[in-house]
Amino acid sequence: MFSVAIQGQYGSFHDEATRQFFKEQPHNIVCCETFSEVFTQVADGTAQYGVVAVENSLYGSLHETYDRIVAHRFPIVGEIALPIHQQLISFPATYTQDITEIYSHPAALDQCRNFLEDRFPRAELVEFHDTAGAVEHIHTKQLTHAAAIASETAAKLYGMTVITKNIEDEPDNTTRFVVIAKKPSHIPNANKASLILTTSHEPGALYAALGIFATNNCNLTKLESRPIRGEKFRYQFIVDVMAQQEMLVSVIHELEQQHCQVTLLGHYVAATV
Amino acid sequence: MFSVAIQGQYGSFHDEATRQFFKEQPHNIVCCETFSEVFTQVADGTAQYGVVAVENSLYGSLHETYDRIVAHRFPIVGEIALPIHQQLISFPATYTQDITEIYSHPAALDQCRNFLEDRFPRAELVEFHDTAGAVEHIHTKQLTHAAAIASETAAKLYGMTVITKNIEDEPDNTTRFVVIAKKPSHIPNANKASLILTTSHEPGALYAALGIFATNNCNLTKLESRPIRGEKFRYQFIVDVMAQQEMLVSVIHELEQQHCQVTLLGHYVAATV
Repeated sequence: MFSVAIQGQYGSFHDEATRQFFKEQPHNIVCCETFSEVFTQVADGTAQYGVVAVENSLYGSLHETYDRIVAHRFPIVGEIALPIHQQLISFPATYTQDITEIYSHPAALDQCRNFLEDRFPRAELVEFHDTAGAVEHIHTKQLTHAAAIASETAAKLYGMTVITKNIEDEPDNTTRFVVIAKKPSHIPNANKASLILTTSHEPGALYAALGIFATNNCNLTKLESRPIRGEKFRYQFIVDVMAQQEMLVSVIHELEQQHCQVTLLGHYVAATV
Repeated sequence: MFSVAIQGQYGSFHDEATRQFFKEQPHNIVCCETFSEVFTQVADGTAQYGVVAVENSLYGSLHETYDRIVAHRFPIVGEIALPIHQQLISFPATYTQDITEIYSHPAALDQCRNFLEDRFPRAELVEFHDTAGAVEHIHTKQLTHAAAIASETAAKLYGMTVITKNIEDEPDNTTRFVVIAKKPSHIPNANKASLILTTSHEPGALYAALGIFATNNCNLTKLESRPIRGEKFRYQFIVDVMAQQEMLVSVIHELEQQHCQVTLLGHYVAATV
């Protein structure tokens, strides 16, 4: 039995992502209040793995997570792509027309704004620090005139009912999570890699670097520039590529020969989207 | 006198960015609850401009904002880079040791977590929907044992005192905002452009596109891939380039000849960082 540190509590989307990845493998979830705590738990060995969000299709990449991965040098050993579906959750006996308060995390309330304005124009929206925590709250306090917005997992966990399914305004909301570990391990069938690529700021430096990927038939699935603070003439890129071991080694070797600095964040099996 | 729609209230970071951009030009601020409302205000002419965050150095690009800009076809007419400094704000007579509650937006509380744990380990952290709103709240309710975390502008606005300056844990937290308008206008000395570039997914398609920027000596300051939902073999990039009018026209022309689809989001004067 191993432990997995996540940010948030049982029933959160981090919890859902973790269940999706580790499936039937028995594991403990270590709930952390902050991302920083997740990394600490992996660093001190309390948890063997951590699951952290790195990117959302609406809100972009979480640079902070990448910074922590780089700072700790924790290898990425897997990824999960989780469609984010928000559910309206209450006690089974609550009628929709009786709902006067709706609890959730501000981001979740925001993602369902059109639905809420349309269907619950008079309900009070109450902000909560965690989506699953909102379900727990209405359950514990026996709030029969309230609903919460959270995942299906959260509803099941507290024995509550989903009264309206998939109420998010934007159907294509997907979050990508990665699984981090303290030490690298060989992952059979690894076909995707995440890199931090640093080039000089000479015009064409990135062009030359991309030429190496192109001539190796190595397909990029993510390429994102980030300014390096305090280094005005260098550029950093977060790069995801589809590559087997042999191709990856050859691409990195050629990049380094071209004076690029490459940090391999991990080589793992791509999530099925 | 013109109107500028922002998300948030007076004293928010959107308000600070707007003041920095329009400086002494007399203007009304139209406070909106959501980003969606900002775009509606510009669309129906209630506001001549909107100011919206597009990118943060820690949290990455706000894809949602880009999507709205593209959907409305509102040109970007300017940009602002605002260093995000959080201030601890209270009544002038409040002693630090008497503070039992600290109010702010969850993101701001999170950005000052180390400071708060170190200096206020026993204070209760109370989440509020808006940083400036938290200052208004402790002011209106006369909470003399509370503090709020918000911008310096918010402190001034409500006649409150900054008791500890720049309490954010991460000193390099900068947010980039853009100014949108309903209709394009010629901007003298425009030197930066934002584009959405769509290439085919053939290996090397991006490489070929970047070759056009390189041979034109056109420097990229941002390049960010985004998957296009429902179109498995095409790629979209958010691209910022430094370019005068003539260079820009020539680059776009060459890109289109290479079967790239280019959407020009705006040509404007780069913010000084």
